[in-house]
Amino acid sequence: MAFVHFASAQPNDEPNVEHNLDTAISPDEISGWMKQMASQPNQVGSPHDRANAEFELGLFRQWGWDAHIETFQVLYPTPVSEVLETTGANPFRATLQEPAVAGDATSARISGALPAYVAYQGDGDVTAPLVYVNYGMQDDYLALQRLGIDVRGKIAIARYGHGWRGLKPKLAQDHGAIGCLIYSDPADDGYATGGTYPDGPMRPARGIQRGSVADMPLYPGDPLTPGAGATENAKRLTRAEAKVILKIPALPISYGDAQHFLATLEGPVAPEGWRGALPITYRVGPGTTPVHLAVKSDWSQKPVYDVIATLRGADLPDRWVVRGNHHDGWVFGASDPLSGQSALLAEAQAIGRMVQAGFKPKRTIIYASWDGEEPGLIGSTEWAETHADDLKKHAVLYINSDENGRGLLDVGGSPDFRHFVSGIASDVTDPETKVSVATRLRAYIRVQAGEPGATAREQAEAKIAADPARDIPVAALGSGSDFSSFLQHLGLPALNFSYGGEGESGGVYHSAYDTWEHHGRFVDPGFVYDALLARTVGRAVLRAADAPLPLQQAGDFAEAAAGYLAELRKLADTERQAAEAQAALLRDHAYQLAADPSQPSRPPAALAPVPFVEFAALENATARLTHSAHGYDAALAHGGAALPPDRLARLDALMLTIDQVLAPDIGLPGRPWYRNLIFAPGRFTGYQAKTFPAVREAVEERRWAEADRYVSITAAALNAYSDRLDAARAVLEGK
Amino acid sequence: MAFVHFASAQPNDEPNVEHNLDTAISPDEISGWMKQMASQPNQVGSPHDRANAEFELGLFRQWGWDAHIETFQVLYPTPVSEVLETTGANPFRATLQEPAVAGDATSARISGALPAYVAYQGDGDVTAPLVYVNYGMQDDYLALQRLGIDVRGKIAIARYGHGWRGLKPKLAQDHGAIGCLIYSDPADDGYATGGTYPDGPMRPARGIQRGSVADMPLYPGDPLTPGAGATENAKRLTRAEAKVILKIPALPISYGDAQHFLATLEGPVAPEGWRGALPITYRVGPGTTPVHLAVKSDWSQKPVYDVIATLRGADLPDRWVVRGNHHDGWVFGASDPLSGQSALLAEAQAIGRMVQAGFKPKRTIIYASWDGEEPGLIGSTEWAETHADDLKKHAVLYINSDENGRGLLDVGGSPDFRHFVSGIASDVTDPETKVSVATRLRAYIRVQAGEPGATAREQAEAKIAADPARDIPVAALGSGSDFSSFLQHLGLPALNFSYGGEGESGGVYHSAYDTWEHHGRFVDPGFVYDALLARTVGRAVLRAADAPLPLQQAGDFAEAAAGYLAELRKLADTERQAAEAQAALLRDHAYQLAADPSQPSRPPAALAPVPFVEFAALENATARLTHSAHGYDAALAHGGAALPPDRLARLDALMLTIDQVLAPDIGLPGRPWYRNLIFAPGRFTGYQAKTFPAVREAVEERRWAEADRYVSITAAALNAYSDRLDAARAVLEGK
Repeated sequence: MAFVHFASAQPNDEPNVEHNLDTAISPDEISGWMKQMASQPNQVGSPHDRANAEFELGLFRQWGWDAHIETFQVLYPTPVSEVLETTGANPFRATLQEPAVAGDATSARISGALPAYVAYQGDGDVTAPLVYVNYGMQDDYLALQRLGIDVRGKIAIARYGHGWRGLKPKLAQDHGAIGCLIYSDPADDGYATGGTYPDGPMRPARGIQRGSVADMPLYPGDPLTPGAGATENAKRLTRAEAKVILKIPALPISYGDAQHFLATLEGPVAPEGWRGALPITYRVGPGTTPVHLAVKSDWSQKPVYDVIATLRGADLPDRWVVRGNHHDGWVFGASDPLSGQSALLAEAQAIGRMVQAGFKPKRTIIYASWDGEEPGLIGSTEWAETHADDLKKHAVLYINSDENGRGLLDVGGSPDFRHFVSGIASDVTDPETKVSVATRLRAYIRVQAGEPGATAREQAEAKIAADPARDIPVAALGSGSDFSSFLQHLGLPALNFSYGGEGESGGVYHSAYDTWEHHGRFVDPGFVYDALLARTVGRAVLRAADAPLPLQQAGDFAEAAAGYLAELRKLADTERQAAEAQAALLRDHAYQLAADPSQPSRPPAALAPVPFVEFAALENATARLTHSAHGYDAALAHGGAALPPDRLARLDALMLTIDQVLAPDIGLPGRPWYRNLIFAPGRFTGYQAKTFPAVREAVEERRWAEADRYVSITAAALNAYSDRLDAARAVLEGK
Repeated sequence: MAFVHFASAQPNDEPNVEHNLDTAISPDEISGWMKQMASQPNQVGSPHDRANAEFELGLFRQWGWDAHIETFQVLYPTPVSEVLETTGANPFRATLQEPAVAGDATSARISGALPAYVAYQGDGDVTAPLVYVNYGMQDDYLALQRLGIDVRGKIAIARYGHGWRGLKPKLAQDHGAIGCLIYSDPADDGYATGGTYPDGPMRPARGIQRGSVADMPLYPGDPLTPGAGATENAKRLTRAEAKVILKIPALPISYGDAQHFLATLEGPVAPEGWRGALPITYRVGPGTTPVHLAVKSDWSQKPVYDVIATLRGADLPDRWVVRGNHHDGWVFGASDPLSGQSALLAEAQAIGRMVQAGFKPKRTIIYASWDGEEPGLIGSTEWAETHADDLKKHAVLYINSDENGRGLLDVGGSPDFRHFVSGIASDVTDPETKVSVATRLRAYIRVQAGEPGATAREQAEAKIAADPARDIPVAALGSGSDFSSFLQHLGLPALNFSYGGEGESGGVYHSAYDTWEHHGRFVDPGFVYDALLARTVGRAVLRAADAPLPLQQAGDFAEAAAGYLAELRKLADTERQAAEAQAALLRDHAYQLAADPSQPSRPPAALAPVPFVEFAALENATARLTHSAHGYDAALAHGGAALPPDRLARLDALMLTIDQVLAPDIGLPGRPWYRNLIFAPGRFTGYQAKTFPAVREAVEERRWAEADRYVSITAAALNAYSDRLDAARAVLEGK
């Protein structure tokens, strides 16, 4: 590969580097790496998990990276025994196994794989009637209360979907259940959505979704070392002290097994939105047939192996661009995570070879292959906690990927990097349509917004998408992958890239059928979108490593913040009106009068009244942010390119850590590990981002003093961001 | 029963009459009449249909009514032979039968019943691949077009629901299908909604929904005599001339049979909203297995027997209050129609006995038991057409009922009778909650409006319902029962009453399981709501027959008309914006770019642009109506009670026919049988009412000259109503 220099003001002026990146990335190599790494079960603690780390270490070194494996010792339970059965007249024992399927050689190599299992459930042996709780989210418990059904002393059975897995047993436990089953309903994840594997891509009747049920919205990572790296001699909590571990036993089951248990339920017919696609009358329960659930785990510590590879920057070695993807799967993990991981390897090979050929990136590039993401973002969290001080001093940006597939670009992250992302997406060509992935995404957003049922937000985004002068939307990040520690604990800017929506990786998610065979047949035939991910993220890494000026466009953040505040105000108004309307209905006994007396029915629990929250401090802060952002952006556009080196260094120092002012040490109420005041995973939604989370959740949960307090704290963080922008503008304008 | 006089200004001042009505109505008698009339299949042309007419004739006479049977000869096809099968490797023949069920003696008396059948389908013998068209409505064909699938030369299979049955084969035919199957999906009408009969109330796997597929939105009644009574010597169209008869063969089938045919389909996976509750992957098709469908009927004329019973008014014998309910069923017809019919008998007995005891209603009361409603509202339509001139001269109000069950009051009709209805509903006590049915309905409307997903209209209605000073809402009437000829052809004011929403008559609708046993067990245990219907409608009849003053409250109509116009303006704006947005997407090739190229996908057909429609004439007319209505209502309230007899007679004459000015002879575009310019069944929605239908459908279907023309015509009708109000006000004010 020819030497190319890559250090001008506009990376797009140097198409050779990116051309070389593109041509160095090979779908066949990506397929080969995935096939190798997905050939055996590779969950945390398995022999192949370690082998994969060592395999990657060898590759990084071969490609010229300074690489090592960083190991942490973490609490990671593995199942010892499991029983799920009904006894009596019609005995039944759940299989809890996934048989091999025809045409998929990998699916037969199940030896050493985890059976049906959710990590960090609480061991136990319980026998109790079952209650069906739909998706097991908060609204479902409100509906149950209206039906006069509760789960105290019962085993809850929830279906997957509409919220993060781990919240289902947690909410069941909070409501008094003594056990929890989670199953994949064919309406959401099975034959209703398409042909089942191996005939089609979708989950077969015996497919099981494993996963973590640690209470990650409290903190992710090793349950015993919150906020600190799980190094060998770290101070550890006891298992009993670790609040993220569930207290009740839980198991995931297939719909093949679930149908038996659901069919035993009696009681009210499930409300319309609760009915899945099994050929039964869904009832809420309780059943009169008790269910026996027993789970026992080995709670010893296990090693996680992070592979860390570095290319030292030529000009600014203490500025780090960090790029990561995990390598551990639940079973074979082809789509999740090895599609993203193989793309990462392709980038690393391309960049490493370019450097070997003489290319000198300005900043340091760190590639990380994380272990232990599946049980709780462990490898990335422990590494981020261990290296927190250095990262806060040096990291320019964290760029993540994970599962990948055929389809549209999906990108989330810090709004001040929206312009940066949009530039990349405009320069990458979609293999299916031959237009840029940005152009294709704009078309998709506009078409969706024209479909029946589109939301107001979707319609507003479509207006932005229709204007080529405006950047493509970038979603707020909640949780669900390894960006979490960087973005939400350290306050670093972070981005997460994937393609998807057309392939069907979801159909075998976290099952033994997520294989190289399945991925190549259904998710990304020809591995072209995995290659495209490498080309996309590789560009992001190279542009971040070599950019002459700070990457933020502050106006995009100001626009986002104003939008978050408008949503928050609307939320408070909506909740206030709902509480007032409900109070009138309760006063007039309207619920009793409207109800069918032959059906169990209760009035809803009274909503606490919602006072008017004082949002003025946030209004002022977002107004000021808008003003400061426009001033900074204009000054950068006008004077950035010609900035003398000393002022450039001062500008760089100010903007390097500007995002961190949004994540002060105080953290979110009740979960101080999460420090970012702009984004967090919802306490009771999981993956999904909540914006202005401290204030928003205080309003949602009627904690008024806390709402007032965090309005001030969040406003102060925004003002600190504006202060920094004003200072940077002064540097740009030579003041 | 004691003599009671009943002629004061306020019927409520004479509680004795209504007390006597209430006590004369017996749930046991209602049960007995239903059991007798539902003991054998009683469809048009069956021996028991005629026996029921004669049974009722005897009862009316016994209770002192002047009664007779009026017979019409109508085209009514009955099935001779039917085949539905797949041949080849996996042959299957649909059963098309409903077996008897345990515990329901009636369900075994199936001899003489119609098999699976839809009346006025077109005979034929076709073999073709199947295409699944979801509910078979217009939107579904748009979705099929997007998927690149059409039904030309195919047999369409549609599920019941989301629109009137008859539109499904009609739209299939319009789109080029050569046959049509309609089945009950368990998601809508089967095990998903509850336990199946006989274990629960819902449709079992072999239950079949019969029904009419005549194109009633064109005209109802005998297909051969539109607009004229089907008397013996009436001029008749030939069968080929009757546009309401379908040209392609069609059959209704059970979900037990449908599963086989649906499982043979290939092609794209059905969109999310198209998936039912059968345990299969719903695909759109076409299937590679051809389906053989053959239907042949006996197309001879059959008699329909209307039972007409009259009590002559003491003071105003040429003012008629007409009350009807049909007596023909599809099989045994217990819930539909004999629940309403038995209530009608209870009213007739009570009123007849009161008259025998000396009570003298002021106006003439006519009770009608219609035949032939199920195949096409035939008995009521032929009678209304035959007696059109007399009805337009004499009829004060037509009051209808049909199927009835446990639950909430559901009342639809002319908006100027809303105050009248609300007064009745406030005086009838709900058996379950012991409050008035109006109070209970208000509570229900308010609770529904507070549930997630409530529409803006529901929320607006809830505000009205929460104000006890305002009348309860009365829905606009489309079609689906015998009020249609009176309201929409003759322009008479009409009301339709039922209770329901809690029992589960829908679960066996139009099947052989709609029996006295099912009704008493699940729909209205104890027959208390059937008795309540009699008490409610009996009050309406008595109050209308004895009222001292006209019943209309014009302000309610003015309010409704203003609301209809606002909806219409919004419709035009929405359609205009949708066309503009779509044009931009087509211009930018957004549909192609957004689509998954591995799936069949086409851009939508271009929507014709929507100009600005000139609504000024309707704006002026509704404004004037509001003004005139308030003037009239105030004058009536102020001066009505003390009006001298000559002016009262002039007032009565003006208001007797005021609603008819809304239904001028010109009729609706393309379907002149429908004359009412305020309400009609939608041309492509069926049962559901369209308000300002001529203008609305012209806008929906992009016929701009027609929209402009009917804005003027509709405005002229409203102005004629206002003229009449002004004249009535002048009489009241002695001018």
